[in-house]
Amino acid sequence: MSRRRMLGFSGASLLVGAAAGAGLDRVASADTGDAGTAAAVPFYGAHQAGIATAVQDRLHFAAFDVTTGDRGKLVRMLKDWTEAAADMTAGRAIGEGAIPKVGVAPPDDTGEALGLPASRLTLTIGFGPTLFEKDGADRFGIKAKRPAALVDLPHFSGENLDPDRSGGDICVQACADDPQVAVHAIRNLARIGMGVVGVRWSQLGFGKTSSTTPDAQTPRNLFGFKDGTDNIGTSDTALLDEHVWAGKGDGSDWMAGGSYLVARRIRMHIETWDRTSLREQEDVFGRTKAEGAPVGEKKERDKPVLARMKPDAHVRLAHPDSNGGARILRRGYSFTDGSDGLGRLEAGLFFIAFQRDPRTGFIKIQESLASDAMNEYIQHVGSGIFACPPGVKKGGYWGETLFA
Amino acid sequence: MSRRRMLGFSGASLLVGAAAGAGLDRVASADTGDAGTAAAVPFYGAHQAGIATAVQDRLHFAAFDVTTGDRGKLVRMLKDWTEAAADMTAGRAIGEGAIPKVGVAPPDDTGEALGLPASRLTLTIGFGPTLFEKDGADRFGIKAKRPAALVDLPHFSGENLDPDRSGGDICVQACADDPQVAVHAIRNLARIGMGVVGVRWSQLGFGKTSSTTPDAQTPRNLFGFKDGTDNIGTSDTALLDEHVWAGKGDGSDWMAGGSYLVARRIRMHIETWDRTSLREQEDVFGRTKAEGAPVGEKKERDKPVLARMKPDAHVRLAHPDSNGGARILRRGYSFTDGSDGLGRLEAGLFFIAFQRDPRTGFIKIQESLASDAMNEYIQHVGSGIFACPPGVKKGGYWGETLFA
Repeated sequence: MSRRRMLGFSGASLLVGAAAGAGLDRVASADTGDAGTAAAVPFYGAHQAGIATAVQDRLHFAAFDVTTGDRGKLVRMLKDWTEAAADMTAGRAIGEGAIPKVGVAPPDDTGEALGLPASRLTLTIGFGPTLFEKDGADRFGIKAKRPAALVDLPHFSGENLDPDRSGGDICVQACADDPQVAVHAIRNLARIGMGVVGVRWSQLGFGKTSSTTPDAQTPRNLFGFKDGTDNIGTSDTALLDEHVWAGKGDGSDWMAGGSYLVARRIRMHIETWDRTSLREQEDVFGRTKAEGAPVGEKKERDKPVLARMKPDAHVRLAHPDSNGGARILRRGYSFTDGSDGLGRLEAGLFFIAFQRDPRTGFIKIQESLASDAMNEYIQHVGSGIFACPPGVKKGGYWGETLFA
Repeated sequence: MSRRRMLGFSGASLLVGAAAGAGLDRVASADTGDAGTAAAVPFYGAHQAGIATAVQDRLHFAAFDVTTGDRGKLVRMLKDWTEAAADMTAGRAIGEGAIPKVGVAPPDDTGEALGLPASRLTLTIGFGPTLFEKDGADRFGIKAKRPAALVDLPHFSGENLDPDRSGGDICVQACADDPQVAVHAIRNLARIGMGVVGVRWSQLGFGKTSSTTPDAQTPRNLFGFKDGTDNIGTSDTALLDEHVWAGKGDGSDWMAGGSYLVARRIRMHIETWDRTSLREQEDVFGRTKAEGAPVGEKKERDKPVLARMKPDAHVRLAHPDSNGGARILRRGYSFTDGSDGLGRLEAGLFFIAFQRDPRTGFIKIQESLASDAMNEYIQHVGSGIFACPPGVKKGGYWGETLFA
């Protein structure tokens, strides 16, 4: 069953071919080395884009539940998704485009991104624990392939998880420099997936909070602090190989070149924070607010001396030296989702981390953070963990190493 | 009571003066004529900015309830808000800045916009009917000044309004080319207003859906259609005077130079729309999807011939010729707020319209739209109406003509 059939197209429209909407495609830049916000990021490669890619400005993250028990349908959809993702990340409309020659058919592409550049769109897929096994059932014949690293996250002290904002069989992280482009991508994937998946939850984010390009200005989170100063740089191949990419010898060959994604929706109690003195804020972080220098130092890039920070400072507890060398690649975004019914803005950080193994990455660090002074001002309210397979070769599809 | 006292500052921090955070202010462009996305839009003037201002890329709209009965406190807050709005729209941190010299004080400014340019931020205030009169009570001694044009909106066919996303005593529309700048502004106003107002509801928007600059590319809404082709241009003084700005002779002198804002949260049933044929979509709109030309014409800017459209086409029913010449200035934004629990994205249009009189503007047109073919694909789920006072003179404050 092809995507076109899934979308309910008539035979007539099949004759039109992929060129139909070509004149109306989005404007893709051929110069993918360009750091401009309009350029296209290559979709195919050894690793999925959207991990070691310089963080884009906007996020639309969606977790899907698979609503069918039919493995064939699931794989068919993954192939259709791959084709659409390759189109959209290149700045092209999907399938026959937004304007079919035969007007009696619904357009393949919903059209709201027509005329917009590729905007560095990346689409990154991940598979949750429940795709491998749910209530003990081997839903799609892949239970035995569940990586040991794809653990169910343990309970962390202080968290208060909303099940409606947690979990999911499949996730897609859409990042772009234009939110309309990211939203268009998730919407069109959801549309293609109709009858196979439904959106379980989704999250929009803005104001990237984790720098992955050490030479650029470090962005600030909603606590007003620079975030990501000591993050793994997207061009630091050695660190990426050691801490981010799953390896051949890690136990699940199909994941080699992939990575594990942990997402946490972190509500920030900004009203409480805003009543806190500057000194207390800096003590809590372990960095100065203006410059972002480690407490006791002068400059943002100065090496932190942990002993100069308070024992419960965030940076100190999260630092590799406090966690046996553990490092993760953060790609978080701020969010503001209306208000909470108590006259306060519902705001916070949608934290995303990629790592080679969550047991020695996020989990290790998060357990350290049990005594974090920042816990007075934040609460984890949503959660997800996903195995992101390696990149796609031309002609291949998302998850091919798992399903083939 | 000064803003600094409201924020709970110690005497010591008062001595520091406004220069404290100066070195860390945001980067304001002096060239306000520049159409660049980083420039500052002048705050002071005959009209409030954010109405006849070329639409910015992002929106954070907040409706507040006044939680005090004390008129003095309310006016004090409006003065403090005005001062902060003048600072933030110029790209400056508020008050003493984000980094007080005396670290034992909480910073005046929450800091997440440090280092970001002014981003064409505008802040536009409006007063809802309940500010003038609530359950018959004259809360702040302004009941007699309620403009006749500030009606309670009638019930419209098909609407299904959520009271938690409707109404409000005061609204602030924050628009900017960077969402972090818009969110920072609303958050800091909410903070200054603590004890006087609480956030009743708020809405983030992206992808402006109404062009106000006829020479620029017309943006597309989430139905994939160009939106705002025939909107009132922000430089069309004659149309603005006739249809947008309240006049001296309109009955409420304090509103002269102001405008009336109607906000509608419109849920779009995108899944249903996406299954609709291109022909049906174009018939519903009354325009072609690719070019945006009126049905039967060739080019986007061709004059619509209403008789060539279906009788229930959206453009036909909303057109001035179908409504005795009624025109409104639209400044709407798309939104996507997670999912709805049924596997669908919750997406739509946050519609904002400015007009001289809602009775002959939005209400007149919306009543026409009772038979709109588009009603099968949308539903109005939130609503608000606000009287936006005229612009502020240097030394004056938001609402001065109403309260002085």
